[in-house]
Amino acid sequence: MQGHAIQLLPLLGLPEIGEGDDLARLLIQAARGKRVGLRHGDILVVAQKIVSKAEGSVARLSSVQPSARALQLAAARGRDARLLEVILRESRRIVREDPVLIVETHHGFVCANAGVDHSNVPGEDLVTLLPREPDGSARRLASEIRKLTRKRVAVIISDTFGRPWRLGLTNVAIGAAGVPVLRDLRGTRDRNGKPLQATILAVVDELAAAAGLVMGKAEGVPAVVIRGYNYRPVDERAAGVIRPAAEDLFR
Amino acid sequence: MQGHAIQLLPLLGLPEIGEGDDLARLLIQAARGKRVGLRHGDILVVAQKIVSKAEGSVARLSSVQPSARALQLAAARGRDARLLEVILRESRRIVREDPVLIVETHHGFVCANAGVDHSNVPGEDLVTLLPREPDGSARRLASEIRKLTRKRVAVIISDTFGRPWRLGLTNVAIGAAGVPVLRDLRGTRDRNGKPLQATILAVVDELAAAAGLVMGKAEGVPAVVIRGYNYRPVDERAAGVIRPAAEDLFR
Repeated sequence: MQGHAIQLLPLLGLPEIGEGDDLARLLIQAARGKRVGLRHGDILVVAQKIVSKAEGSVARLSSVQPSARALQLAAARGRDARLLEVILRESRRIVREDPVLIVETHHGFVCANAGVDHSNVPGEDLVTLLPREPDGSARRLASEIRKLTRKRVAVIISDTFGRPWRLGLTNVAIGAAGVPVLRDLRGTRDRNGKPLQATILAVVDELAAAAGLVMGKAEGVPAVVIRGYNYRPVDERAAGVIRPAAEDLFR
Repeated sequence: MQGHAIQLLPLLGLPEIGEGDDLARLLIQAARGKRVGLRHGDILVVAQKIVSKAEGSVARLSSVQPSARALQLAAARGRDARLLEVILRESRRIVREDPVLIVETHHGFVCANAGVDHSNVPGEDLVTLLPREPDGSARRLASEIRKLTRKRVAVIISDTFGRPWRLGLTNVAIGAAGVPVLRDLRGTRDRNGKPLQATILAVVDELAAAAGLVMGKAEGVPAVVIRGYNYRPVDERAAGVIRPAAEDLFR
């Protein structure tokens, strides 16, 4: 089924993105500029950071009034109380306080600092938040790209998250449109005809991780085209990859 | 630095692998057969399953005498006590018993069933274990490939592991040779010249995940060439990605 080559193509030359920018149009232009183009069936992986900037999902620290809880957390770790206040507002639950602040966001993602970040943002005052509704953001981007190019292109919005038992961050999907999220191989059989058990692959996260190889972080490659991956264009949401609370073994 | 395309190329046509097979030679033949070839700087990702089969890292259930503990665990979940005995022997610590048996293997990997598996193994009696020393297996493969082809090819041995907060499995690296494992971006600066903080990317796991897109599981593609990834051929071990016990937030 997937016995052919997959290509990971960087979209270079995107300008600095700001609130209100037409991200779909800028992504299409970047793809055209480097002769990558966008083809039917391509998967466009976009770093959360530029989606948040375009949507204005940002906060200005100078306008944040820290709560008592934020002041307390900030004092304990020598950090900016206004930043901690922003993180707390983005969180539904604090999972761990030390050595890093790991929270469950309002979306249900478990990650450090609720995804609030000030790398790759101009100045010292601005921080980016995760998009309000990343699956909706992905859907809108896919739909606008379809309108502008007549191509059916799937969209994944990625961010880098840590893992409890393994060091380092990997790119995962926080939003998706038009691409399978989980690929359930239960019921299919292996090479020897035996049924595969408990084999649900998180395809959407492997796609995001693959794109991460091209993105780097300092390199300014916030969008990647994955070409040649064989998939059915299904209507699934990246939120579907969040483990339900009842199945969370470490709650 | 990585502003160019990466290709993920399946190695097709590998035969069923058995104990004592010369895996390096078979991988080289598969690469030649499909005109993929192996080039200087390629990264060859090999599924753990065929490494274990070639090394004889397997167990025959018919020759296993289950312990009292294995009998107890098996009774509680209606499973084969001999299989549970094999899992226990591969484990240093049981992390969770329900709903799936999650253990820490003797290597230090935290995964379901200690990586013991009977999919893609002929018959009902044989199960595969993880390789004894997957970094050593990767090193040997890389060294044999270099001898036979004169090409410096990095090797990653991959397996599919679950994650606590996200559903589905992704391919991760359990062994590596000649490729960076963690890429530490602390000290480097973002596009705006600000230092990047707490940004250590688990490059080796993103490489394994990317290869996973081509492998599938039922498809019989147990090896993938990653071509065009820009890296320094360093001497790092995949074991280095295991979070030290003292930093395990959920112990």
